[in-house]
Amino acid sequence: MIKNPVAWPDGARVAVSFTWDLDADSLLHIMHPTDSYRRVATQSLMRYGPEVAVPRIVEMAKRYGVKMTFYTPGWSVERYPRAIEYILEGGHELAHHGYLHENPNERPPEEELYWLQRASEAIRKASGRKPVGYRAPWFKYSEHTTDFLAQEGFLYDSTLMGDDVPYVLESAKGRIIELPFHWAMDDYPQYIQNDDLNYLMPIKAPNQAMEVWMAEFEAMWEYRGLWVTVWHPFNSGRLARCTHVAHLIEYMQKKGGVWFATSEEIAHHVQKSIDAGTHRPRVDRMPYYREPIPELRRT
Amino acid sequence: MIKNPVAWPDGARVAVSFTWDLDADSLLHIMHPTDSYRRVATQSLMRYGPEVAVPRIVEMAKRYGVKMTFYTPGWSVERYPRAIEYILEGGHELAHHGYLHENPNERPPEEELYWLQRASEAIRKASGRKPVGYRAPWFKYSEHTTDFLAQEGFLYDSTLMGDDVPYVLESAKGRIIELPFHWAMDDYPQYIQNDDLNYLMPIKAPNQAMEVWMAEFEAMWEYRGLWVTVWHPFNSGRLARCTHVAHLIEYMQKKGGVWFATSEEIAHHVQKSIDAGTHRPRVDRMPYYREPIPELRRT
Amino acid sequence: MIKNPVAWPDGARVAVSFTWDLDADSLLHIMHPTDSYRRVATQSLMRYGPEVAVPRIVEMAKRYGVKMTFYTPGWSVERYPRAIEYILEGGHELAHHGYLHENPNERPPEEELYWLQRASEAIRKASGRKPVGYRAPWFKYSEHTTDFLAQEGFLYDSTLMGDDVPYVLESAKGRIIELPFHWAMDDYPQYIQNDDLNYLMPIKAPNQAMEVWMAEFEAMWEYRGLWVTVWHPFNSGRLARCTHVAHLIEYMQKKGGVWFATSEEIAHHVQKSIDAGTHRPRVDRMPYYREPIPELRRT
Amino acid sequence: MIKNPVAWPDGARVAVSFTWDLDADSLLHIMHPTDSYRRVATQSLMRYGPEVAVPRIVEMAKRYGVKMTFYTPGWSVERYPRAIEYILEGGHELAHHGYLHENPNERPPEEELYWLQRASEAIRKASGRKPVGYRAPWFKYSEHTTDFLAQEGFLYDSTLMGDDVPYVLESAKGRIIELPFHWAMDDYPQYIQNDDLNYLMPIKAPNQAMEVWMAEFEAMWEYRGLWVTVWHPFNSGRLARCTHVAHLIEYMQKKGGVWFATSEEIAHHVQKSIDAGTHRPRVDRMPYYREPIPELRRT
Repeated sequence: MIKNPVAWPDGARVAVSFTWDLDADSLLHIMHPTDSYRRVATQSLMRYGPEVAVPRIVEMAKRYGVKMTFYTPGWSVERYPRAIEYILEGGHELAHHGYLHENPNERPPEEELYWLQRASEAIRKASGRKPVGYRAPWFKYSEHTTDFLAQEGFLYDSTLMGDDVPYVLESAKGRIIELPFHWAMDDYPQYIQNDDLNYLMPIKAPNQAMEVWMAEFEAMWEYRGLWVTVWHPFNSGRLARCTHVAHLIEYMQKKGGVWFATSEEIAHHVQKSIDAGTHRPRVDRMPYYREPIPELRRT
Repeated sequence: MIKNPVAWPDGARVAVSFTWDLDADSLLHIMHPTDSYRRVATQSLMRYGPEVAVPRIVEMAKRYGVKMTFYTPGWSVERYPRAIEYILEGGHELAHHGYLHENPNERPPEEELYWLQRASEAIRKASGRKPVGYRAPWFKYSEHTTDFLAQEGFLYDSTLMGDDVPYVLESAKGRIIELPFHWAMDDYPQYIQNDDLNYLMPIKAPNQAMEVWMAEFEAMWEYRGLWVTVWHPFNSGRLARCTHVAHLIEYMQKKGGVWFATSEEIAHHVQKSIDAGTHRPRVDRMPYYREPIPELRRT
Repeated sequence: MIKNPVAWPDGARVAVSFTWDLDADSLLHIMHPTDSYRRVATQSLMRYGPEVAVPRIVEMAKRYGVKMTFYTPGWSVERYPRAIEYILEGGHELAHHGYLHENPNERPPEEELYWLQRASEAIRKASGRKPVGYRAPWFKYSEHTTDFLAQEGFLYDSTLMGDDVPYVLESAKGRIIELPFHWAMDDYPQYIQNDDLNYLMPIKAPNQAMEVWMAEFEAMWEYRGLWVTVWHPFNSGRLARCTHVAHLIEYMQKKGGVWFATSEEIAHHVQKSIDAGTHRPRVDRMPYYREPIPELRRT
Repeated sequence: MIKNPVAWPDGARVAVSFTWDLDADSLLHIMHPTDSYRRVATQSLMRYGPEVAVPRIVEMAKRYGVKMTFYTPGWSVERYPRAIEYILEGGHELAHHGYLHENPNERPPEEELYWLQRASEAIRKASGRKPVGYRAPWFKYSEHTTDFLAQEGFLYDSTLMGDDVPYVLESAKGRIIELPFHWAMDDYPQYIQNDDLNYLMPIKAPNQAMEVWMAEFEAMWEYRGLWVTVWHPFNSGRLARCTHVAHLIEYMQKKGGVWFATSEEIAHHVQKSIDAGTHRPRVDRMPYYREPIPELRRT
């Protein structure tokens, strides 16, 4: 079912990357720029991420010996330094997720680049090292993003959904590795109900949400794919849900054949396999489009 | 429970038609004509259909010896020639699904006809043969559609929801066979969450979605009906979901009494049964209405 | 758990009334007055109600010896005479559901009364008898509705949700019996997805929807309440769903202690019990409010 | 998984507080100030709360010997005196929930204070005592709320979501205890469908909704947290759902290690533990923000 699987290290059948978008309350401010400061309950909901969930997740990851990736807006890096310390001390990866969770699809390219650089610098300041991985806020990867990531020296992106295994994005400015996921791997559709976020789902029990992610895992294990979560500390890191994450890790470890890795480690492995000639990846020339498609003119 | 069942070939209890709407990214362009080119993540999500899912589905269909139907917008036929080759080489049916997934209910009749003809021509060019089957984009079958389909020589439509078995649509211009389905047979309500598509469902696990389609199958099997999916390669063709489609086919084959057929084969069988006088179908005079109902004037 | 249960006939523990809102396509016309005639797919979806589902439901009801109630807009009565014949020949009740499913909460009282009378007349013409029961379209019972129902000689209403057992609505013009239900008893939240109806639910499998109604039934059976569905032929009358309705009736009949009755029969029983002094109902003086509440002036 | 658990009385593993937001129809009036009086069906739905559900809940609570908290808007206290009597006679806590369920985030501070005082007075009149606990209507806790609660002498709030255990909110005007919950503990996402409330969820069966709350309970029991519901009498107090609440209480009592308490009792216990120096709580300086964040200026 998968045409071009990557040979994972040590013969593992699946690469598993627990990745967390640590937005904190950045979203609230960008969505309600004039009165976010008034919306204290949603602030408290989202601050639970860096303040309560991150220490819990880091502790849990340590218990199971698993390294994870935290895609964090630059503003959140600056605002919640203790959470960032937990992440770094735990040996986890800090990756790029915009500066204020701003939407690159609604901004001119020079603004996208400005925020990209500003957030990279925030991560460099906090961790001593520029990020090598990126996930676009709101998944709003733009027609310029590949160019910008390549010229800024990024190794990989994890925003797109075009395959079940890593592939390569190539632009005029260079190449990056894409670590794809898809919407079923996100925890918003399972758990989030909040009118300040303009998002109302019929909240599921953790075991029901886990069925979705387990089904993805079993298939990726069977066919040697890549399993990447898009979870949020304030959401899947809530107590009851986090206990189910722990059970999932236990299940995976018991089943075996799983390579637990940060996104960076996976991207490096793919890059190395390409360089060594042991893997010939799919290469997508980016962007797919530079302007409205001409066929629309008649409509 | 079904008044007027069709006698399916070889005494089968149910006619099963796996039909896929291969929209690719046509929807995105029609929904966001000025800036679809910026929305790369959703492009990648939808391109997964022709690039990853179609080869997978075709391979799976071959494994089980099942022929399927792919309702494909003309633009997608032109844009993704390799996917179309897979479909045709696999012996599957290529059917009509508009040109750019444009909405016929929002357009004057001459535009509906223009796009209908343009997409037919795109399919003819790709396959050497004009399509004989149609499904209206967005299910927006118009008051002129029956006329247009009849005059353009179509054999059947599969957009309407008026019965559990095929019936006949008759207009001033001729007759076509209707292969009805209903919304429960669509995979969007089970699986899709995407703000660019303005569509937010609480994504289900594949086994939960399958319960919906299994219930329809069991009932159609019991009462000798027609089971037609409206699935999308980028959606039900994702890895985990597609493994469940495979299990479903296995289940159906084991159960027996199932006639797996393309929509065209089913329509032909119905037409032949009518011509032979062995089936007297329901005939609906179309359209049901030509103008606003007069009773509304008082309201 | 129920303070004031009604003593049902023959010591039954629960009164069960299968009631169907046979809207047909009235909703579509009232929601899209200028272009409903263009939306053929949704027409076909809703016409399935009178054309396919009603004969099926009537046949099923006959098989189990159960009488049901069909709340039908006057326009639908006029438009689908064969469905009405099925209903009447089956011995079922034809009740009032507006004329074109118009919303009484958005209309002046004289218009509400106009449509109420017009639809009553449509039912009288079709059945030889004015309806005695009412359910407001969209559940939009107005501050005038009790008055109008009382003066028009109605026996009961089944729109409100204020109790688990029948109660009395009293206005200056007289009294009617209220047969309450609540939203969990409606089949739209379980099954409907249709953009023309501006309504998008994640369609459930019939067995999952049945869990909702079964839970209500078990509780009403336990505590001697009233179980009233708000189902729609085009929806719960679809083949797979209808087979589950049949199973539910079988289950109820096997369990015993169930009084299957039309809404009219239940209202008559309650009225008789009140008249005989064997039941002292809750009486609500209507309307609850005649104008905006005064406390709002400060806000 | 919980860093700083509170030692609950008698070595209990979890503090359980059944709290009900007894809005009655206040929401309807605030959402539709000009024509709420016309919307009789939703009035009846919401009046079910004080008229049918509250007596049922109080009786059930008595059966199990559990005390609960009812957050009630002042207007509802005035409007439904018999429900309030039931609550008080049952020994339950009457807490503050705004006056008309007005949104503090959309009002100037002087209005927030006006309604806060007016509702406190309504509760004092009804119960002889000012409320000591608060939950903001719509969860719209403002940047002034801590100040107001502290200066008005409140002991605690239960609106925020920043932790799994109680914590302290400190402002210039004083300190209050926060008893946090989160959206999964609310019963709207599980059960509510009502267009007058502009809220459409795919209503679940009670056993499915209970899975959500049970998962939270099991985790809080395991890690010694706080379990606080945000249920509504008109909603979780409906018959079938309420029978499941009863089963849940039975389950909890059988499992043991549960301290059933009102919110006030929990807040008192926490305060006492702090005063005695046996618990060092997290203290949040409030508000988190006083104005739009400066980083937004560039965006």
